[in-house]
Amino acid sequence: MKKDFKPYYAVIFTSTQKEHIEGYAEMANQMEALAKTQDGFLGMDSARNEVGITVSYWESLEAIKNWKQHTDHLVAQQKGRQDWYSWYNVKICKVERVYEFNL
Amino acid sequence: MKKDFKPYYAVIFTSTQKEHIEGYAEMANQMEALAKTQDGFLGMDSARNEVGITVSYWESLEAIKNWKQHTDHLVAQQKGRQDWYSWYNVKICKVERVYEFNL
Repeated sequence: MKKDFKPYYAVIFTSTQKEHIEGYAEMANQMEALAKTQDGFLGMDSARNEVGITVSYWESLEAIKNWKQHTDHLVAQQKGRQDWYSWYNVKICKVERVYEFNL
Repeated sequence: MKKDFKPYYAVIFTSTQKEHIEGYAEMANQMEALAKTQDGFLGMDSARNEVGITVSYWESLEAIKNWKQHTDHLVAQQKGRQDWYSWYNVKICKVERVYEFNL
């Protein structure tokens, strides 16, 4: 680990969806765009096959809390539980070490 | 957070692949099966679209280190860098809080 490594946070959002998810893609795009404008947002990655995984990265726990409580995001969360997700799991994690390979 | 929550660890493996990835699926299946037999392994989730995300969960940093250094896994890592991945990033994280939604 580099001596100057500054820990940051990851939110691992794992989910399975219902069969019919009308309106989901539009909302997901809106939420991604909105997340990117939040203080302390560092980045995100998403992929979905049988299970969907979205990992977002944040400077602090406070930034995660603020995003979780953002009014528009609360509406999206409510819609998600009501209409789109059959299950989801959220893990708040502290990123302690990173390494990377590049061609 | 529940008072009896015991922190554990997540390895977030994010990657992009080359165009031709002969032998990859077989090796990925082998490595998943092998990981599941390791001491301290708790579970894993994978999905891939433009980017691939595999998150594996472990009881301890020692379990992660042992898996990283497993002989068969070292061979797979070498093949991965040589043949399959154009980029990957590994983040070692401490899972500090978890919440879940179920229909």
